[in-house]
Amino acid sequence: MDAEAWRMRWLLLLLLLLLNKGVLGAADSPRPPNIVLLLMDDMGWGDLGVYGEPSRETPNLDRMAAEGMLLTNFYSANPLCSPSRAALLTGRLPIRNGFYTTNGHARNAYTPQEVVGGIPDSELLLPELLRKANYTSKIVGKWHLGHRPQFHPLKHGFDEWFGSPNCHFGPYDNRARPNIPVYRDREMVGRFYEEFPINRKTGESNLTQIYLQEALDFIKKHQTVQHPFFLYWAIDATHAPVYASRRFLGSSQRGRYGDAVREIDDSVGEILRLLQDRGIANNTFVFFTSDNGAALSSAPKEGGSNGPFLCGKETTFEGGMREPALAWWPGHIPAGWVSHQLGSVMDLFTTSLALAGLELPQDRVIDGLNLLPAMLQGQLIDRPIFYYRGNTLMAITQGEYKAHFWTWTNSWEEFTQGIDFCPGQNVSGVTTHTQEEHTLLPLIFHLGRDPGERYPLSFTSSEYQAALSMLGPAAQQHQKTLIPGQPQLNVCNPAVMNWAPPGCEKLGKCLTPPESVPEKCSWPH
Amino acid sequence: MDAEAWRMRWLLLLLLLLLNKGVLGAADSPRPPNIVLLLMDDMGWGDLGVYGEPSRETPNLDRMAAEGMLLTNFYSANPLCSPSRAALLTGRLPIRNGFYTTNGHARNAYTPQEVVGGIPDSELLLPELLRKANYTSKIVGKWHLGHRPQFHPLKHGFDEWFGSPNCHFGPYDNRARPNIPVYRDREMVGRFYEEFPINRKTGESNLTQIYLQEALDFIKKHQTVQHPFFLYWAIDATHAPVYASRRFLGSSQRGRYGDAVREIDDSVGEILRLLQDRGIANNTFVFFTSDNGAALSSAPKEGGSNGPFLCGKETTFEGGMREPALAWWPGHIPAGWVSHQLGSVMDLFTTSLALAGLELPQDRVIDGLNLLPAMLQGQLIDRPIFYYRGNTLMAITQGEYKAHFWTWTNSWEEFTQGIDFCPGQNVSGVTTHTQEEHTLLPLIFHLGRDPGERYPLSFTSSEYQAALSMLGPAAQQHQKTLIPGQPQLNVCNPAVMNWAPPGCEKLGKCLTPPESVPEKCSWPH
Repeated sequence: MDAEAWRMRWLLLLLLLLLNKGVLGAADSPRPPNIVLLLMDDMGWGDLGVYGEPSRETPNLDRMAAEGMLLTNFYSANPLCSPSRAALLTGRLPIRNGFYTTNGHARNAYTPQEVVGGIPDSELLLPELLRKANYTSKIVGKWHLGHRPQFHPLKHGFDEWFGSPNCHFGPYDNRARPNIPVYRDREMVGRFYEEFPINRKTGESNLTQIYLQEALDFIKKHQTVQHPFFLYWAIDATHAPVYASRRFLGSSQRGRYGDAVREIDDSVGEILRLLQDRGIANNTFVFFTSDNGAALSSAPKEGGSNGPFLCGKETTFEGGMREPALAWWPGHIPAGWVSHQLGSVMDLFTTSLALAGLELPQDRVIDGLNLLPAMLQGQLIDRPIFYYRGNTLMAITQGEYKAHFWTWTNSWEEFTQGIDFCPGQNVSGVTTHTQEEHTLLPLIFHLGRDPGERYPLSFTSSEYQAALSMLGPAAQQHQKTLIPGQPQLNVCNPAVMNWAPPGCEKLGKCLTPPESVPEKCSWPH
Repeated sequence: MDAEAWRMRWLLLLLLLLLNKGVLGAADSPRPPNIVLLLMDDMGWGDLGVYGEPSRETPNLDRMAAEGMLLTNFYSANPLCSPSRAALLTGRLPIRNGFYTTNGHARNAYTPQEVVGGIPDSELLLPELLRKANYTSKIVGKWHLGHRPQFHPLKHGFDEWFGSPNCHFGPYDNRARPNIPVYRDREMVGRFYEEFPINRKTGESNLTQIYLQEALDFIKKHQTVQHPFFLYWAIDATHAPVYASRRFLGSSQRGRYGDAVREIDDSVGEILRLLQDRGIANNTFVFFTSDNGAALSSAPKEGGSNGPFLCGKETTFEGGMREPALAWWPGHIPAGWVSHQLGSVMDLFTTSLALAGLELPQDRVIDGLNLLPAMLQGQLIDRPIFYYRGNTLMAITQGEYKAHFWTWTNSWEEFTQGIDFCPGQNVSGVTTHTQEEHTLLPLIFHLGRDPGERYPLSFTSSEYQAALSMLGPAAQQHQKTLIPGQPQLNVCNPAVMNWAPPGCEKLGKCLTPPESVPEKCSWPH
């Protein structure tokens, strides 16, 4: 299609939007669109057929892309789960919403059971705000914004919850560590490896089927009512220990990880089909993405693929933060579009508010962008992407250029023990095992020519100078005006683990916590 | 689609084929389908949007895939150009057709100007055989099967030729080395960098446009006649020095290499459109692939992408030999199919003969397979893929497993000089810089779980034993029965360079050859 044809297409779209603008403005419309966010766990950019996974085992996701928009340049807000999820739901970088640590320089931190902190009450979460437009909100799956009761989803705007507060690590002995509880709404209904089994040997678990059923039931229940719904489907089958139902075990050419992807693909197909069958597809905005890059240190059995990108989860190279991203809204997002818009999971916050016809909070900095102009009109909005590791701005991307101010994979000590975030990859001076500072003379890559971050631009080239004169001030401006939030991931205490979650009494599953010993959390990388 | 639905679809297809079988059998049909082979030069698996290239700049090729079949597991016959092309046109491994060297162990060899050898007269080339079914054959672009007159395309079955016998390296001074001639049919019509300019500084050249016009003219000329045509479009814009027309220069996010890809994509779009506009699309089988993996040692400016695969051109890792491959034949190959069939460029020989309704030569071993059952009925045919480097069987793939009997990238000497076939990649014990023999205990990879060849199976695992008991005998059987052809790439002589090609007199472009000094060709890797 030539430029003229595209322009005509956009004009037509704009016209349609104007004729139909009630869809976008709550003031004009009795019911803004439903919102479904499908957030994967440790799934990589290269894990979908439509992103080039060689086995091509994701027909439903590939169809979702064909019927909607595929984003090539969409990023998580952090190379690790908890901070990325907190950023998605607050529209704010982890450095602002407190999901980081100051216990060390540039250390990834998250919310294991011993973490004392969680999402601060002062943060406004997407479901809290969506209430103003009468949305009913449900989270299915992993919360990860703090497991202590005051941090739970129903304290922060969600109306319903089925899932767990932490990762499904285990099994534990319930003496040194308790198994992670599974909640329905405010109370636990069991624990992983107990009422909700995961067979570590075979990889069998029917959790994805349970999560799917929760999603389908929620959609069915709310499709007919006047109010819109928000479903946050945060499933975790692709996070180690990777699992799949019996029907999917052994079904993939890619091993157990692929089995989990196949089951997820199948489930997404079911969700989209239900929306279509019930006639609400064109009033439901669906977005599929992941919380961080594939965990290459668990590959190949329990880790995915970041396609052509460098390294994976835990790092601020592209493999750590570039994500698969599909937007689907039949009748609104044109089928088969590809967007190179630089996007972020934080944009899902802002975009969702725009869909609901709500204003952004005015009392705080919101990092997320409204992507509707990109999704509906094909606009390209200039904006930076910030790559943080803990308290440290490691890199920035704007346009085609990425500057690294710090490089680090993990320590030599860890690396020599076999923990490798970049297996099979080694770019001299880039995938460093000591924290290397480049703030005065950043390493700059052109991500179009060099998506794998293998060839830093020559410091003496005019291209380097031009890129630096764009990226340098953008980073400085960001850092100059940034007010970091209170760090939530500094203090750990064995007494705060999930010993006696709400509801444990009814089930007879309360455990006795050990003595309270607050201590500095240890974040090795 | 479930298994039952697939079965029904195949049965329907079979029925259609039976009703319509004249298409496949020359005996029953006045005109078998036209055949168009679009062979790229040094293009990698990861260079097309549909194979996951992040910039997604190949809308026409992506559409070709959507309208036809995408093959995920299609291989060149060699990690280097000349042997791969000789194999394509003979349906035989280079070790059989003579396109290899015995000057060193496991050395890649090709046909630079000083090579004395070329395609032996004893080899039967596809266009020679297609004559029996009244095909008219044209090659546009790079021949590479020997530049001395006795080896030229018109001596080996082609009716027409526009292009060059060798790579477009240069410019040369016409004293130490002559510039490469460009031929129309039997006579040269100029030389690269002279009548056919390539600007090494800007990358500008209109060669792809010339090659496109040659293709379009040939199709237009032959579409109306009774006899079918075979077009072998072997263009070379993605081989260093990479070039593009002015209209495409600067048009890609990927730099000059991407500009070349965009121009190729645009040209393929023109060719397919012409076939459709003239109403012969459903009687023309079109196949798009490449001669070997992307030349990573020329990246990022003049080399492409092998996606998630290990290393590139010159190596027998997946990046050196796994190729993009699209088959398009509207009304015959179902739109949007994906095939995991292990395929080879040699299969294009056998498949083309099947399309023409011709028998395979009975007096020699043909390595190529007829892929029509895979393309038309979705069959999966069990067969091995052999990875040779020169005279040495380096590896074999069958099913999901690949065994390496030898590993080598290039020598330490070359590597320390900056020649790197695996930039940014380093798999300990796999990407070796000395030739490592593993014949007794091959390195085995599961390519489904581990397409990047990073995790050799444990020698003590039962999976290793099972894979070895399949791959070992397959390789042994191959080697036991193999009769190598006379090696053609052993002897070099400066006197045989393109000093005075046929037709040079008319143009006043004959140069005086130096003294004849036959010597052993030097093949460093």
